[in-house]
Amino acid sequence: MDEQDLSPYCAPLTEAVELIGRRWTGSVLRAVMAGRTRFSAIAGAIPGISDRLLSQRLKELEALGAVERNVTPSTPVAIEYTLTPMGESLIPVLLEIERWAVKWLVPAVDARTRRLRSSS
Amino acid sequence: MDEQDLSPYCAPLTEAVELIGRRWTGSVLRAVMAGRTRFSAIAGAIPGISDRLLSQRLKELEALGAVERNVTPSTPVAIEYTLTPMGESLIPVLLEIERWAVKWLVPAVDARTRRLRSSS
Repeated sequence: MDEQDLSPYCAPLTEAVELIGRRWTGSVLRAVMAGRTRFSAIAGAIPGISDRLLSQRLKELEALGAVERNVTPSTPVAIEYTLTPMGESLIPVLLEIERWAVKWLVPAVDARTRRLRSSS
Repeated sequence: MDEQDLSPYCAPLTEAVELIGRRWTGSVLRAVMAGRTRFSAIAGAIPGISDRLLSQRLKELEALGAVERNVTPSTPVAIEYTLTPMGESLIPVLLEIERWAVKWLVPAVDARTRRLRSSS
């Protein structure tokens, strides 16, 4: 890629990266895309998230149009969250971030841990 | 992709997505990858960023190992920021997020604006 062709600022990129980078949002999307559709199943998949924050993130993703809330009028009422086409289109994006993380972040964290251990 | 094959939680993904999604970080990386290497050039490329926050984000990216600070001992001293191999490897990741944003976020924002205009 020719660096000269790239504009130095892109508002949609900034908006998108900060949107999916909001605390817990990436984890919520991953849990839903892995088939955890019930609130309790999503909550159970993400270590440390509170019900209040999960509820807030799901509402934000619903308002954005990435997640759909489906209510089945059974007894008790069954509520399921699924990805919309917009949400589905985030799957390759998140997997691309994940490949980068596994290649670059995991070794960096490992190296930091080794340095801390050897200096203590 | 088989959804059953995907684990519902991935710590490196969560870390990476929240790291590059931190306010301004995506914009700073984009400006540097587009060839804005001086502090003032990076600051000039990003609407609304303060010098203090740009300085903080550059330090974080340096500590992470994604950005390198190069000092040329000229008069005045020339300081340039460049991407390390780790930082370079973020380019396709950010471009993937950007493609998603242009396809899905821009139309969503446009539709919202039209709805607000027609209801006012």
